[in-house]
Amino acid sequence: MLRTRTEIAHFDEPLVLESGRVLPSYTLAYETYGRLDARGANAVLACHALSGDAHAAGISDDPRAPSAVDGVGADERGRSRGGLGWWDGMIGPGKAFDTDRYFVVCINVLGSCRGSTGPRSVDPRTGRRYDLDFPIVTVGDIVAAQARLLDRLGIRRLLAASGGSLGGMQALEWALRFPERLAACIPIASTARLAPMGLAWSAIQRSAIMADPKWRGGRYPDDDPPAAGLAVARMIGHVTYLSAISIAEKLGRRLQERDDYSYSFGNDFAVESYLRYQGDAFTRRFDANSYLYLSRALSYFDLAKSYGGGSLRRAFARARARFLVLSFSSDWLYPPSDSAAIVDAVAANGGHVEAHVVESTYGHDAFLLEEAKLTDYIRRFLAETYEAL
Amino acid sequence: MLRTRTEIAHFDEPLVLESGRVLPSYTLAYETYGRLDARGANAVLACHALSGDAHAAGISDDPRAPSAVDGVGADERGRSRGGLGWWDGMIGPGKAFDTDRYFVVCINVLGSCRGSTGPRSVDPRTGRRYDLDFPIVTVGDIVAAQARLLDRLGIRRLLAASGGSLGGMQALEWALRFPERLAACIPIASTARLAPMGLAWSAIQRSAIMADPKWRGGRYPDDDPPAAGLAVARMIGHVTYLSAISIAEKLGRRLQERDDYSYSFGNDFAVESYLRYQGDAFTRRFDANSYLYLSRALSYFDLAKSYGGGSLRRAFARARARFLVLSFSSDWLYPPSDSAAIVDAVAANGGHVEAHVVESTYGHDAFLLEEAKLTDYIRRFLAETYEAL
Repeated sequence: MLRTRTEIAHFDEPLVLESGRVLPSYTLAYETYGRLDARGANAVLACHALSGDAHAAGISDDPRAPSAVDGVGADERGRSRGGLGWWDGMIGPGKAFDTDRYFVVCINVLGSCRGSTGPRSVDPRTGRRYDLDFPIVTVGDIVAAQARLLDRLGIRRLLAASGGSLGGMQALEWALRFPERLAACIPIASTARLAPMGLAWSAIQRSAIMADPKWRGGRYPDDDPPAAGLAVARMIGHVTYLSAISIAEKLGRRLQERDDYSYSFGNDFAVESYLRYQGDAFTRRFDANSYLYLSRALSYFDLAKSYGGGSLRRAFARARARFLVLSFSSDWLYPPSDSAAIVDAVAANGGHVEAHVVESTYGHDAFLLEEAKLTDYIRRFLAETYEAL
Repeated sequence: MLRTRTEIAHFDEPLVLESGRVLPSYTLAYETYGRLDARGANAVLACHALSGDAHAAGISDDPRAPSAVDGVGADERGRSRGGLGWWDGMIGPGKAFDTDRYFVVCINVLGSCRGSTGPRSVDPRTGRRYDLDFPIVTVGDIVAAQARLLDRLGIRRLLAASGGSLGGMQALEWALRFPERLAACIPIASTARLAPMGLAWSAIQRSAIMADPKWRGGRYPDDDPPAAGLAVARMIGHVTYLSAISIAEKLGRRLQERDDYSYSFGNDFAVESYLRYQGDAFTRRFDANSYLYLSRALSYFDLAKSYGGGSLRRAFARARARFLVLSFSSDWLYPPSDSAAIVDAVAANGGHVEAHVVESTYGHDAFLLEEAKLTDYIRRFLAETYEAL
């Protein structure tokens, strides 16, 4: 088992954001696994999803490490189980991202609340929290910040960038923003732009948080956050990550510790108490303002708009990476058709692209749960890419 | 155009509910269209969905009629447009439910806030509002209350009961609760039990209302209701009624009255302002407690549990009606597979059943929008049933 520690890097050079606003300085939390080879050619960036963090693999040595506090089985979705990294099934010796061969880096995204600078950080210019004064950050900004950390780590070019969901968006952004710095792009259960259905769910989740009077325009005290609103947002997100089949198989209409209906508004059904638990647990480890900012980053993500004047094909003309595009048959939030659009755009430009729709009943969550089905594709693709360097 | 008026019927005989609790008296708001024939054999019960009301067709003569207050285009989902009834495309002279041939009755469900007794009604025993003291009502209770009104109207047996969503549940409940009183059952976009995915969304919607501090345990004043929580609940419901295709075609990622992102939390996208509008408009015409109660009725609906000891086939052994089961290809909330389960249960008992999966991109909403595609099926089926009486 990997023993890991979250590192912190400070950047005092201002970062000009896509909005035109400037972040005067920032901090990134990150972890690394394996060793960078002599050529500096074996680095892989593992990108986390909305509520993830830098602790992607192994067990942290640091009891205060972001993920370690969650406890065993606190959540299935991208956070650690018993202090394990959120993608531990994929990163480690002999795994898909084999740390005996590759140097894997995972960086907590800008805007998060898990060690990197976000809305609950202190604005160095005012000495108080940013909260809603924090500038909107985009996936492009997140990736631009990551690039500076890779500079510092001596990684001129990535062998690969990969991740699921928002993590896949980062991998795709890498391919277009820094085409010469990426050899392989492996987006999983992701998209080149958030689909309108996803826009809708993101907007409702933000509404739920902002509808909570305790949100107070973003200026809530640490000990009295808008937990009720955040819990509703999380419950919505949670269901969108499942599939009709997975929720039926996992919970069905089973009653929770009772033989008949209570004829009340209590949590009669297992699915009701499960969601309530997931919603409440989330509020103990994630910040409401960060949720708003990262939800906004999802909404704004649109590669055709950013790089192609509205055309995805034109956007991908700049890409130089080899692409392995993975999606899941039961994912209705980031459906296989969204991945197919990426494949078409790469292929239309004569790029190298391999794609698989992985059969799974787990819905969007599959990128965290179907490790066995992903491993062979990724291991082979990485090896091919490394050999072709 | 039909000119209609909502009637009110009071019932002083106590109603024993499925929970065992007793409603001492109650009121039902209803409308009728067409004329009952001499044999009393041409009555059709049109059953509304969660937020519908008795005003199913025509234009109301009564300016205070439930639907008329909504104004033009206030909502696409089962409420009137310009005072038009929610199913006006289906009910009227020459329409699917032809009022030149049939006597159509629509009754506001028990638990609603649109004229019938619900949680915001006054408890005659205490002289104050029920609010959360209102007993939980089930689809079975709703139907039992309807049967008494039909008794009073001289309708011994229905030619048909039909409706979409919760309305279809009522039609199905009629077939099993009063098998000798129903000749044809026409559930549309419905189910014999709310699927686990639907359970989840219902639970989250209730959580959103109850998380609003203004809900106050259900005892809120009329002029300060939990509008923020109800709006979130409605937005969630609204998206579950759409399909990925319909939301993409209708709104896509189009920006709302702007050329570029605002880089803020404003409603940049048309889908964001659309949902916000729908959520806010809903709070002006629907009551939060009624939403909770009817959401609970949806959750508890399970014909296999109520009539078959867990077996849907056994439950349908008691049915005597002919069934026309209609569903929509893009409805993921009440998917065609739920309708197929009904068909199998009827067929397994040797019953008469005809079924169609109607091709539509409108999702669950199709039961209100695909009137043209439904009309021929229903018109023919009603005529056949009437002739076979």
